[in-house]
Amino acid sequence: MINVSLLGCGGMMPLPNRYLTSMIISYNGKMILVDCGEGTQVSLKILKWGFKAIESICFTHYHADHIAGIPGLLLTIGNSGRTEPLTIIGPKGLLEVIKGLTIISPNLPFELRLLEIPSEEEIVERVGDFYVHTIGVDHTIPCIAYTIEIKRKRKFDPDRAKNQNIPMFLWNRLHKGEKVIFEGKIFTPDMVLGEERKGLKISYCTDTRPTERLVDFINEADLFICEGMYGEYESIDKAMANKHMLFSEAALLAKKGNVKELWLTHYSPALKNPMLFLEGTRNIFKNTLLGEDRMSKVLCFE
Amino acid sequence: MINVSLLGCGGMMPLPNRYLTSMIISYNGKMILVDCGEGTQVSLKILKWGFKAIESICFTHYHADHIAGIPGLLLTIGNSGRTEPLTIIGPKGLLEVIKGLTIISPNLPFELRLLEIPSEEEIVERVGDFYVHTIGVDHTIPCIAYTIEIKRKRKFDPDRAKNQNIPMFLWNRLHKGEKVIFEGKIFTPDMVLGEERKGLKISYCTDTRPTERLVDFINEADLFICEGMYGEYESIDKAMANKHMLFSEAALLAKKGNVKELWLTHYSPALKNPMLFLEGTRNIFKNTLLGEDRMSKVLCFE
Repeated sequence: MINVSLLGCGGMMPLPNRYLTSMIISYNGKMILVDCGEGTQVSLKILKWGFKAIESICFTHYHADHIAGIPGLLLTIGNSGRTEPLTIIGPKGLLEVIKGLTIISPNLPFELRLLEIPSEEEIVERVGDFYVHTIGVDHTIPCIAYTIEIKRKRKFDPDRAKNQNIPMFLWNRLHKGEKVIFEGKIFTPDMVLGEERKGLKISYCTDTRPTERLVDFINEADLFICEGMYGEYESIDKAMANKHMLFSEAALLAKKGNVKELWLTHYSPALKNPMLFLEGTRNIFKNTLLGEDRMSKVLCFE
Repeated sequence: MINVSLLGCGGMMPLPNRYLTSMIISYNGKMILVDCGEGTQVSLKILKWGFKAIESICFTHYHADHIAGIPGLLLTIGNSGRTEPLTIIGPKGLLEVIKGLTIISPNLPFELRLLEIPSEEEIVERVGDFYVHTIGVDHTIPCIAYTIEIKRKRKFDPDRAKNQNIPMFLWNRLHKGEKVIFEGKIFTPDMVLGEERKGLKISYCTDTRPTERLVDFINEADLFICEGMYGEYESIDKAMANKHMLFSEAALLAKKGNVKELWLTHYSPALKNPMLFLEGTRNIFKNTLLGEDRMSKVLCFE
């Protein structure tokens, strides 16, 4: 069971009911945060998911509306009693940005592990149970999109174990993922596990123009969270100049990518009522939802 | 007429109904902000005071709960159309901190003028109509308290002008503050103005232990905004260790300083209900109010 929540769905500046961009995924007692705009801490506090179990914080890019919440959040994570290292992932420039921002949150009780991601190719990093995929997108500064994949554990297959004459007292250890050497023979977990099972895939993409690479990257995602900076088609020139998307462009991407569900986020502060554009967007991609702060969903394996 | 508003009254971490420390004063179409914790922008947006007219941003110190809102606020001020320089005032370390934080808010359309204040002595800086006084206080890192003084304009005194045989056609220019040379004689505004009139004084003090210097510094303030990190007396050891104040200590300071009114702010996140300690605090200083986000007051000259 995976919990996903959109902590903030605003772009540019925080509003009373629309904090800045941030999304969190919780699985198996661990969390991964993507983007951390102003208000992220407040939403997390309201959700009551805690702070200590955040394993990794990922950034799409370094505009303030995606990252200004980090110094405060790191201090709060520190106050939650965390001492284990925390991984921060982001595109080129990460080291300099984190060095600059943590000047106001020094002496953290845990180590920061910084992972600077090149945006040219698709990269996969594993953080605990989360497989973090990234690709470069098309914004005014280096920016990456994320796909967080959670693999489903393979079942134990007693027939396979029997057929290979694996002693029964080793089954449990192998099933738990241990490699065992017994009587000079090597036994690996792979030998007792059944077929691969479909995992879950959540894609998150802001700020960017739609790109062809994104279609493959989000392909068949269970949930696709995508920016919808502007509602009306008349903003297309602005969207192209500022490297953002219209609702309709996000919906077309969702359709081409054959995703299960689309959540729109990163609304322009000028976009007071996203609801006005929902019907038109659903005409392109039916299963579209308008993101709201702390909109959450439980995803289950099939 | 001077408007004061407490934009955020929380310490350490932002809460849903308690943003982090920040206070703003508006006078004569210009504003001065003291501290800028997370949530400052949201409160200002709710107040509808605008962003463009912020002349100066002052920092007590560089803990994240007092400054993390600055990169986003600077961008929003930029988006408001401001092009005039903006003065940022703070204790030692200002240049490095602002350089670090503005890495995520580059290319502002206005100049930042940074004024690093020594904390050893009382300093007065003039920013427009605001006279900004500072002294060093007693926190875990260099920290200063602020008194913002607004002088009341002196009245025009026609009798003084007549007695000095100042030609009547010069009166208006002199009253407006112009120095005029006429027939080889120098006429100054001072020659036509009446007696000094009492201005208004707002003192703001967080984070610190109470100090003797503060008593003089806040003397007879019309409004004294002071930290009250802890309500119950039992927290005195914590207050001393973390260099903060109890409600009762803030009240005693207000009493010794003979201020007109005390607002408490910068509550610990653990302090859920400050109201529990109000009566006890009022027994020390009667005119105490519990700060709340966007609590505002209009101050008028006598």
